Amino acid sequence: MQFTTEQRLDDGVLEREFTLGEIPGILWTPASASLSAPVPLILLGHPGGLHKMYPRLAGRARHSAAEGFATATLELPGSGDRPRWDGVEQARADVRRAMETGEPVGEEIIDALILPLVEKSVPEWQAALDALLSLPEIGGPVGYSGGVISIGVRLAVVEPRIAAAGLFAGSFVPRAMFEEARQVTIPLHVLLQWDDEGNDRQAALDLFDAFGSKEKSLHANMGGHTGVPQFAGDAAAQFFTRHLK
Amino acid sequence: MQFTTEQRLDDGVLEREFTLGEIPGILWTPASASLSAPVPLILLGHPGGLHKMYPRLAGRARHSAAEGFATATLELPGSGDRPRWDGVEQARADVRRAMETGEPVGEEIIDALILPLVEKSVPEWQAALDALLSLPEIGGPVGYSGGVISIGVRLAVVEPRIAAAGLFAGSFVPRAMFEEARQVTIPLHVLLQWDDEGNDRQAALDLFDAFGSKEKSLHANMGGHTGVPQFAGDAAAQFFTRHLK
Repeated sequence: MQFTTEQRLDDGVLEREFTLGEIPGILWTPASASLSAPVPLILLGHPGGLHKMYPRLAGRARHSAAEGFATATLELPGSGDRPRWDGVEQARADVRRAMETGEPVGEEIIDALILPLVEKSVPEWQAALDALLSLPEIGGPVGYSGGVISIGVRLAVVEPRIAAAGLFAGSFVPRAMFEEARQVTIPLHVLLQWDDEGNDRQAALDLFDAFGSKEKSLHANMGGHTGVPQFAGDAAAQFFTRHLK
Repeated sequence: MQFTTEQRLDDGVLEREFTLGEIPGILWTPASASLSAPVPLILLGHPGGLHKMYPRLAGRARHSAAEGFATATLELPGSGDRPRWDGVEQARADVRRAMETGEPVGEEIIDALILPLVEKSVPEWQAALDALLSLPEIGGPVGYSGGVISIGVRLAVVEPRIAAAGLFAGSFVPRAMFEEARQVTIPLHVLLQWDDEGNDRQAALDLFDAFGSKEKSLHANMGGHTGVPQFAGDAAAQFFTRHLK
């Protein structure tokens, strides 16, 4: 992992862009983080496109920093400045066409869009975790928050360093992930935007039901995909404080 | 309203039993409440039987007092020390029999159990509100929390002094209440115990969907009817703090 830029934000948060091999990422650490007082880490998921997502990611990072967490994110395969990835481009075009014509998005399209993304990105997040946890200012258990829910599910299953996950029920979920969900045992905090136009509410409820975790909470709020209310963000922060501190 | 007993609990909360006509009730006020600093009030719903419910009600009252709220509760018609009420007794027996034999509880039984209770108890809670709000140590907006959800729905529709409601999706809901739910416009915080053996989960989700409120949140957690986790209580307290203070 190579740091490429470094700046202090006005609230004292240190923002560093990095590359992990060819993959761009960003790390935010609270002003309080130091060699003698390492802070726990939350991985910030997103739908792909770091530049476009930067304002929302930085907002979540600063909110988390105020609670004493470092946060980090990584570009997804085929998104942002990373090389185009033809298979997924095709699936994205299929999704757009289905949504524009009002057709339901078929299972094959969802599988073609999501499964390769999960397969490719999860090992990348794990490699990032290796690098991030070797930094002296970061320590303790790790959380995963938001982004493509299937990536969160797979990480929760295969990555034992992730102790708690906040998931956002807002993307297409392949049927295979429902089986995988049963193997998740870590505490989960699931946000559902009740009237999310791009989300199948019943599928989100079924996925929540499938999770094997003994502690899992579903928080449903009104508003569309990007309308998560401030108080829901606060509740998610409290969830991570309960489980990572 | 006549106060019949008065005691200070060890955390300074003043607990007073009262009667409103023939109806017993309890009022808890935080140590901080005074003529010069009146506190907002939360009405504590329950399924009936003040003596049996006392430990849980007192726990909720002390939790609320720590957040600066007075709380009050009232015995339900036909419960506890109040006169038996034959129609509802019959419906209760029908429910028990259906549940013991594993039959679904029919709509007529639910209507016979809940609708008369709503009709009779809601005006009683409103009369209690008149009396409670005339006390100088109580002021500001009022919340309703828990208990028989249909009573909460009706109160939210007909009682303009109730500014926010925390509802517990855990009792039989007559079909007529779904229509009434559309008329609710105050902020709602709805708790659902995902694996509540005595609750129809789909009906709870449908009711949440029906509420007309622009701000409504559903918090689903694991565990049975009485297994609401501590952090869910904290989130409900934060909801009332946002809306009543």
